[in-house]
Order: sequence, then C-alpha cells, then structure tokens
Amino acid sequence: MLPYSLTRFIELFSKIPGIGPRQAHRIAFWLLRHDKNFLYSYGFAIRDLADKIHVCRQCFFVFETTSGGSETLCTICRNPSRDQTRIAVVEKETDLISIEKTKQYAGLYHVLGGLFSPIEGNNHDLKVQELANRIRENPQTQEIILAFSHTAEGDLTAMELERILKPFPAHITRLGLGLPRGADVEFADEDTLGNALQSRR
Amino acid sequence: MLPYSLTRFIELFSKIPGIGPRQAHRIAFWLLRHDKNFLYSYGFAIRDLADKIHVCRQCFFVFETTSGGSETLCTICRNPSRDQTRIAVVEKETDLISIEKTKQYAGLYHVLGGLFSPIEGNNHDLKVQELANRIRENPQTQEIILAFSHTAEGDLTAMELERILKPFPAHITRLGLGLPRGADVEFADEDTLGNALQSRR
Repeated sequence: MLPYSLTRFIELFSKIPGIGPRQAHRIAFWLLRHDKNFLYSYGFAIRDLADKIHVCRQCFFVFETTSGGSETLCTICRNPSRDQTRIAVVEKETDLISIEKTKQYAGLYHVLGGLFSPIEGNNHDLKVQELANRIRENPQTQEIILAFSHTAEGDLTAMELERILKPFPAHITRLGLGLPRGADVEFADEDTLGNALQSRR
Repeated sequence: MLPYSLTRFIELFSKIPGIGPRQAHRIAFWLLRHDKNFLYSYGFAIRDLADKIHVCRQCFFVFETTSGGSETLCTICRNPSRDQTRIAVVEKETDLISIEKTKQYAGLYHVLGGLFSPIEGNNHDLKVQELANRIRENPQTQEIILAFSHTAEGDLTAMELERILKPFPAHITRLGLGLPRGADVEFADEDTLGNALQSRR
C-alpha cells in the first residue's frame, strides 16, 4: 500500500547497520515533512561521499580529492611532519579519529577494517596482508601499536597480528590498561584495578 | 581533520531524529565501504522521495504521482469503494499503516501530524483546522474515530478534538481499551485489566 519510492527508500535504509525497518519508516516520514531542497541536500551529501571521498591506498583511512586531483594517499600519510617510524593499527576509522583527538600521537595509521573473529573465514576482508606488505616495504618502521579495545576479539586480533608481524624487526606494543579517568577505585573490576596497579607510574 | 564532504554528511544525518553524531559517523564509514553505485542508489532514493512523493491535500498521507500526473489526493482518498462516512484520525503515517494492516477498516483517514502537548504553543503544526474544515465540507461523515494511543498526550488530543468537533453531527469514538493479545492476566496493570473487564464480550 505504500508508494514505490517510499518502499524503495525504506528497503535501502533498513540495510544500514543499526537502522531497522521501523526507524527507516520514521526517517522517511520525517524527511517528507521538510521541503524538497532539504531532501535534495541529503541526496547531494551522499553523492559527494561517492564522488569525492576516497580510501587511502596505504592506510585505508578516507580523504577528499580536490577537483582534478589524483592523490592516492590521505592527508596523514602525505604529511611529512608525521613520525614515519610508527604505525598505529586500528579496528575502524572512528578509532583513528578518537586517537587523533588526543593530540598525543604523531605517527601513521593502518585501518584494519574490523577485528579477527573466532568464527573461521570471517577475517578475509581485514587489511592484514596489506599491513605486512607495508611494513616490509617500509623498513624504517620501528613501532607497530596495536590500538585495539581490550576485548576478546581485540586480544585475538592482537595475538594474530603479533604472530604475523613477528618476522619484522619493528617493536609491537598495545594500548595501556588501567583505570579510566573519573572511575571510582571502589567499583573498578579486579582486572582493571590489577592492571592499574601494574602500570602505576 | 575529516574531509569536508564527510563532515557535511555527518552534520546532516545527525539531524535525523534517533541518529546522533556517533551513528552518523558509523553510517558514513559503512557507506564508504561499498562501491559508488551502491552509494548513488541511496542518493537516488532520497531524490525520488523529494520528486515523486506528495502529501494528500485531504488526509495528509503520502502518495506517488505517476509521470505527468497531477493528482492531489492519495490512493485511499481516491478509492470510491472506501467507506466515505468514516474518518480515522491518526497521530502519524505509521499509525495509518498499522491500521491498514489489520484489514478491519475500510474508511478514510486524517493524519494529524502529532499529538497535542500540554506545553502551550506546541500544537500549531497539527492539521486540526483542516480536519474541522473537511468535516464541515463533507456532511456525509457519520463517524470520526480518534485512533490515538491511550497515553496522556493521546487522551489530551482526544479531549481537545472532541471539544472542537462537537458542533458536527458525526459520532466520535476512540479505540477500545483491553488486554493486548498474548498478555498474561496476572501481570496486566490494574487499569488495563479494569478496562478489559468493562469491555468484555
């Protein structure tokens, strides 16, 4: 009973992780309460993502090409003042953004595109081989920071990468474990508190 | 540090109710993991919403115009086999869809576009005047079903509409109260159980 264009919209937006058919309905009707130009601006925003945003061939983060530009590297990889001897391997783009916001890291990145999963055959999309090749081709790499969450999948991924990257001379590190800022000692779990004790400074 | 097109996308999508900046980031990067044509299809879907979907001038539900068409009424209002003597007033489009799915109602609708709020001045976008005009112009209207949720705002809206529609001869009804299908009598709240007792059949 719904018009085709609306059904098609709902079908597409229901595919987005975190948006179900119910929310896709709500989004469609919310958009339709606005004028045409407002809706067009959403269409243009998506078209610009498709046309202007590219994935860095070295670190797999995103960057925007200037008109007529033929860059293949992102602004971080292109920046000569970044520390070229360090690579922080992150699960996803938003983790890179969070690390950049700390302003405490001036090295390069590598977006893995996910974490290893205990389910066999689920890991083929991860940029692991690309990471190994990159380190092989860049012998100046001194440190590889495995900047994953300290979860089961993060630990598994770190373990696998340590195994794969063992042949290279670069030092492999992980993010420190400890008390998060603002947390109450009384209510910290034993693991976290134990780690905070061991990493005291 | 994010490319402009990406920032713009995130800014726009963060405005959608239920989507915050964090989810807008995730949606952007999820889209960017797909090929250009996949992204274009989302852009086209939004453009088609803007170009092809119109709002019925009588009931404020949506409909699609055929190419070159100049309809101003939705398929429900245009359908002569629907019962023209009944109007179900609903809060929003998705409520209309739910009622249609029951296949128990063959009358017309009126999408109010929200509910009355106890906060003064928040009700100016509701299609209340349009409803009153419509009933005035359609003296064949015999029943107006106020198909709102039985919540504080739904009750307030029903009360206000009953007051406004009093001058018309049409009978005003609301949706029945009772036990929802599958609910356990033991755990039903007193109100619901009391209502179920009163509406027993």
